[in-house]
Amino acid sequence: MSSTGRFIVFEGGEGAGKSTQARLLAAALTAHGIEVLLTREPGGTPGAEAIRGLLLSTQGADWGPRAEALLFAAARADHVERLIRPALERGAWVICDRFIDSSRAYQGGGNGLSDAEVMALHAIGSQGLLPDCTILLELPAQEAAARCALRDQGVSDRIGGREAAYHARVAEAFDRFAQAEPARFARISALGTPDQVATRILAVLAPWMAA
Amino acid sequence: MSSTGRFIVFEGGEGAGKSTQARLLAAALTAHGIEVLLTREPGGTPGAEAIRGLLLSTQGADWGPRAEALLFAAARADHVERLIRPALERGAWVICDRFIDSSRAYQGGGNGLSDAEVMALHAIGSQGLLPDCTILLELPAQEAAARCALRDQGVSDRIGGREAAYHARVAEAFDRFAQAEPARFARISALGTPDQVATRILAVLAPWMAA
Repeated sequence: MSSTGRFIVFEGGEGAGKSTQARLLAAALTAHGIEVLLTREPGGTPGAEAIRGLLLSTQGADWGPRAEALLFAAARADHVERLIRPALERGAWVICDRFIDSSRAYQGGGNGLSDAEVMALHAIGSQGLLPDCTILLELPAQEAAARCALRDQGVSDRIGGREAAYHARVAEAFDRFAQAEPARFARISALGTPDQVATRILAVLAPWMAA
Repeated sequence: MSSTGRFIVFEGGEGAGKSTQARLLAAALTAHGIEVLLTREPGGTPGAEAIRGLLLSTQGADWGPRAEALLFAAARADHVERLIRPALERGAWVICDRFIDSSRAYQGGGNGLSDAEVMALHAIGSQGLLPDCTILLELPAQEAAARCALRDQGVSDRIGGREAAYHARVAEAFDRFAQAEPARFARISALGTPDQVATRILAVLAPWMAA
């Protein structure tokens, strides 16, 4: 992509602390003098945020799995074309809360599409762009459920509110992807305080920050 | 699909009279005692209409060709799953104003995606459902432009408002599809009054109406 730009993605189930850790990493990199673009999926551009609104509403249509997967791929195509690729090309680090592996885990692993179909949509929409490093935040299921309950106070969006078996399938899918691509994935325990987790993540990325 | 349900799609460029002819055909079939579902793309279901709003707005985001193709495929997936397949399965005739060949002509033919990519999205989203008969309404370019100007009074949506060369590429694409699949396409001249055109269409469909 570029000699210096890096594409770092946070993945993992609900309650693992992805957005907190994405913010902490962005702050640490910025303090280190690196240009950082902090973004999230679905969303990140006006078009993709509009699609996010369609996807996550509890009021709106209840999408079938195929329409849902196509909408996520459309939002990602806009996000990659308008925001992520331009930032990488000018040498910035892009930190993104969720990306293609969430689609593979949530639409593919948990919801009836094959992994090949999800990756075919990504190839057509975003030329198959993959992160340089995917930080998989891992948490025991019971701890994740407790954190989600605390955070959501009983109010959950359409996807976060699905049943426990669905979330277990998603966790199994992430585990499978990380085993299949050990060079792209860094598995990080999400147990402990946010600062403790952030320290683990910086240790993994330190070689690139020095480069 | 069913022993009696038929899937009839109207295609062609702007101003060819697709929606008028779709309505006239629905009325003729209904008068003949046939259950008819009259619908259109993009749209046809609440979810697909919401996506249509994102796609056709002149106010909203200016979508890139890949995000646009994915949004059309998402709208179609919802439309096929929720409305078209159930109607065909109960034996109704479905009459649809635009379908997959419009995506092939507008997103594929006119806008940078390959036909194979558009058909791959259709395979993933809608299991590659094709019409039993695609009625291609054909009009000389000058006549089409004159009709559009009259209809729109200078106000045009985002796609209809594109330049003449774009519409010429679209017309060439429809011509190519019809030549490649003569059994699925019925080419109908859109010149003359609406009733004259409707008579030509009924002549093509008469064998199925008797069945």
